[in-house]
Amino acid sequence: MFGSRRSALRALVTGAGIDALLVTDLVNICYLTGFTGSNAALLVHVDGEQASRFCTDGRYSSGARVVELETVIDRASALALASEVRGWGVRRLGFESDVVTVDAHSALVGAAEGVTLHRTPGLVQLLRLVKDDGEVAALRAACDAADAALADLFAAGGLAAGRSERAVALDLEARMRHHGAVGPSFETIVASGAHSAVPHHRPTDAVLRRGDLVKMDFGALVDGYHSDMTRTVVLGPAAGWQRETYELVAAAQRAGCAALAPGAGVVEVDATARAVVEEAGRGDEFVHGLGHGVGLQIHEAPWIGRTGTGKLTAGMAVTVEPGVYVEGRGGVRIEDTLVVRVGGPELLTRTTKDLVEV
Amino acid sequence: MFGSRRSALRALVTGAGIDALLVTDLVNICYLTGFTGSNAALLVHVDGEQASRFCTDGRYSSGARVVELETVIDRASALALASEVRGWGVRRLGFESDVVTVDAHSALVGAAEGVTLHRTPGLVQLLRLVKDDGEVAALRAACDAADAALADLFAAGGLAAGRSERAVALDLEARMRHHGAVGPSFETIVASGAHSAVPHHRPTDAVLRRGDLVKMDFGALVDGYHSDMTRTVVLGPAAGWQRETYELVAAAQRAGCAALAPGAGVVEVDATARAVVEEAGRGDEFVHGLGHGVGLQIHEAPWIGRTGTGKLTAGMAVTVEPGVYVEGRGGVRIEDTLVVRVGGPELLTRTTKDLVEV
Repeated sequence: MFGSRRSALRALVTGAGIDALLVTDLVNICYLTGFTGSNAALLVHVDGEQASRFCTDGRYSSGARVVELETVIDRASALALASEVRGWGVRRLGFESDVVTVDAHSALVGAAEGVTLHRTPGLVQLLRLVKDDGEVAALRAACDAADAALADLFAAGGLAAGRSERAVALDLEARMRHHGAVGPSFETIVASGAHSAVPHHRPTDAVLRRGDLVKMDFGALVDGYHSDMTRTVVLGPAAGWQRETYELVAAAQRAGCAALAPGAGVVEVDATARAVVEEAGRGDEFVHGLGHGVGLQIHEAPWIGRTGTGKLTAGMAVTVEPGVYVEGRGGVRIEDTLVVRVGGPELLTRTTKDLVEV
Repeated sequence: MFGSRRSALRALVTGAGIDALLVTDLVNICYLTGFTGSNAALLVHVDGEQASRFCTDGRYSSGARVVELETVIDRASALALASEVRGWGVRRLGFESDVVTVDAHSALVGAAEGVTLHRTPGLVQLLRLVKDDGEVAALRAACDAADAALADLFAAGGLAAGRSERAVALDLEARMRHHGAVGPSFETIVASGAHSAVPHHRPTDAVLRRGDLVKMDFGALVDGYHSDMTRTVVLGPAAGWQRETYELVAAAQRAGCAALAPGAGVVEVDATARAVVEEAGRGDEFVHGLGHGVGLQIHEAPWIGRTGTGKLTAGMAVTVEPGVYVEGRGGVRIEDTLVVRVGGPELLTRTTKDLVEV
């Protein structure tokens, strides 16, 4: 699997007109090798696996055995490879200019004597945009763990007046672990009452009260892949404005999901969902983009928003998460993770989106 | 507090010969403003608070109120500020060249018309090196939570043959939360038997067995600050080689801690502890640096190792963590978090370092 990913990358490297790509982004390295330590560099040479090299430091010398490439042990991983590439026949060396810092670039220029450095941003990310079957299976497992955790929370009466946001967040995280997650895929958001109007609220000791909107945005990490889901419920019977806001967001979310199709522009998908909110005269209360890609990172390309670029492709995994926030009162966000497919998206987060009055 | 940190930074900005510093590193922004969202930029102008600006996007417009500076709401935070700086009297704009990527730098150059960009790496990190009283209090609370969790784990018989590494890791994390942590400060390491020879082992379903070395490297996150501690125990009576390795590492660790003093060079501190291992003829089995700074990041400057630079100063918070690893058999690491003080370091992680035979 990793070998075939490196092979696919070689096509892009060749297309970029370079002899080799120096990969220093650790998520990209994980994607290409399976290595998950905190220090590594990978040289993908157009001449193939024998000409390619992996580098990490002494802490990981045994862990590096998962990487089926000749391995160099050196703490200064990227510089160690850069200083050798000329001897390996590289004249034009690509680097990840969207990842490498200005200072690190200067150091690379110093190390890679006799070699020209070329900006080649986003090559590995291009491959990562479309998930293969193994990746979708991991995403599915992560989404299943989150769904199961929320179902358990409901069943156990875990959403009750008197509990703190923090307690509910910890409860959700423990239940995701119980269902196979190694941990949450990001800091769990539980926001009750007026807090629900803050898109990215951190759970506090504030206590859930009857009549509150409770917004939960959370996900599970399984086999390195992230899930992302938001559900908003009401503690008790919904007030008129709560129901109205909820139904508006739900309609926008349905429209966004329905717009997911191979070939659809990310700006158009955002606009389709946003139009529903704008037609209700509440466009100002939808203060963020519609969604983002999900995979080895919780937020990755493609970006579905007003300022995005590009089109969707079958096999992309994305979120659709409109929100409407009434400052000082409360807000609603509904979010799913889906895979773009011909004939309609595959829904990975399957908890109901009907208004739940706990 | 944040105002006085920005004031201290202004002295460094002035010293660097620039009119303003564009801060884009989110940890540095948190240090300077208290803001903890995922998108922000901060312009620290030499002319003072009135001339300085903060920028984040619409998701955080209410959260941005913690920042006592004029705030711009714009998704392209760094570029939004860069495009306005000329109007704010900036001719020489510093940027964090150790953080800004090559591509982001190009975009900044395009946005900041009529302004020259200057590399000014590490200015905020210089301030962060020395912890103020509030920061030490947070570090102390984080270390206390980790100590208390491990004490509870021992008391509850949580280190027992038959339990998996993963179960022990989750147990430790839950107990740290119980003692006030918002979560672990990094992925908890529990490594038993031969796994303990892997410096950065990820917990597996492998089961602890009688006679195993069990290495636990873990920390708590409290108020944004991290703790870091490693203890290695034996399940049952220690074999001769286990005890010998343990006592060697403990002696090296004591030597390293004793060497922590204002004015001591980081390379010398590393060498002092390493000499103990080398004199036993086992220098090759100590494959990593001696320690690192701890604060808003789990790993930050200063770096205490063979290739570090600089000297210690009173108020720095650092780890001392020698390890000796016997591949295929097992390894021992002992790690504390301490604050460098005149008259001797303040020990923050206070769990015993005597050999524990569970």
